[in-house]
Amino acid sequence: MAHIQLPAGLPGITGLLAVSPETARPLRALAEVLLHGPNSLTPGERELIAAGVSAQNDCRFCALSHGAAAAANLDVSYDWVRGVQANVATAAISEKLKSLLDIAGKVAQDGKLVAAEDVARARAAGASDREIHDTVLIAAAFCMYNRYVDGLATWQPEDPDDYREMGVHMAREGYAPRDAPSGAR
Amino acid sequence: MAHIQLPAGLPGITGLLAVSPETARPLRALAEVLLHGPNSLTPGERELIAAGVSAQNDCRFCALSHGAAAAANLDVSYDWVRGVQANVATAAISEKLKSLLDIAGKVAQDGKLVAAEDVARARAAGASDREIHDTVLIAAAFCMYNRYVDGLATWQPEDPDDYREMGVHMAREGYAPRDAPSGAR
Repeated sequence: MAHIQLPAGLPGITGLLAVSPETARPLRALAEVLLHGPNSLTPGERELIAAGVSAQNDCRFCALSHGAAAAANLDVSYDWVRGVQANVATAAISEKLKSLLDIAGKVAQDGKLVAAEDVARARAAGASDREIHDTVLIAAAFCMYNRYVDGLATWQPEDPDDYREMGVHMAREGYAPRDAPSGAR
Repeated sequence: MAHIQLPAGLPGITGLLAVSPETARPLRALAEVLLHGPNSLTPGERELIAAGVSAQNDCRFCALSHGAAAAANLDVSYDWVRGVQANVATAAISEKLKSLLDIAGKVAQDGKLVAAEDVARARAAGASDREIHDTVLIAAAFCMYNRYVDGLATWQPEDPDDYREMGVHMAREGYAPRDAPSGAR
């Protein structure tokens, strides 16, 4: 049972966004910019970073929903996403994305663990300042979303299949605040 | 030296907000709602939660600046703030705030550590669902801000005195996005 009164049937962060519209707006706007807005990192690459941090933080709702969004964006299976998380070093992804996933994993533990060598490796693989910035902020933001969802003990379905449709929707529609006038951000 | 190119002389998050206006807007809007907007928890109480989590995460810039904001809001010294952080149980604060600070400390480690008994204790001390929600989200949000500031190796002055004026400014002006039309959020 959740720690506060939440509407029935709304899993993970969705119930929290429903009961707190004044915090939902910036939380949605941040996710939209980080994961879905224009960026030289594809939405699929950014969702992989978000899902990886969430898996590391053991937040089932965020790991499975953003894993499903990554799968939808990249047109791969959820098992493929899980394979990347299990072994970044041998995954069939670019060296740049590997280096960014490693930076994200350090940020999830403690930002101070990110070393100059980690950043140099990403840069040598072609990462820009903007991409390094966005990777660190995506990882940091999911340390927030994960703790928000878990710290209030929200309902989180167990079956990855329950997240497939949600992931497709997230990949297609993004996260923009629902009441925001178009182009307001 | 910071991991990415940042403007000189802007400490901690301020340089990051300057180079990334599209993420600065939701990050500022979130801080404004959580710390400075209308709430049954005073801005001073909310800044204490933010500063406590930041101290726990060993993020110097956030701990000292929000500690200074708490001191300014509560009209106490920075040493008083540090005393509360050093020993919540014996601090001259309400039982409700003690229970919320304890919940925030658990969220900073892992949201799943918040137990039903922790929430029951806060509720018995008079905390509402909204106050419990906001405490968890403030703590979660500072796990983001802390990692953002530290993960990019920003410049963070060492002397607490260097943060006093910043804290007074934060307490008075809040965090609203600078280009937001009044009442837009």
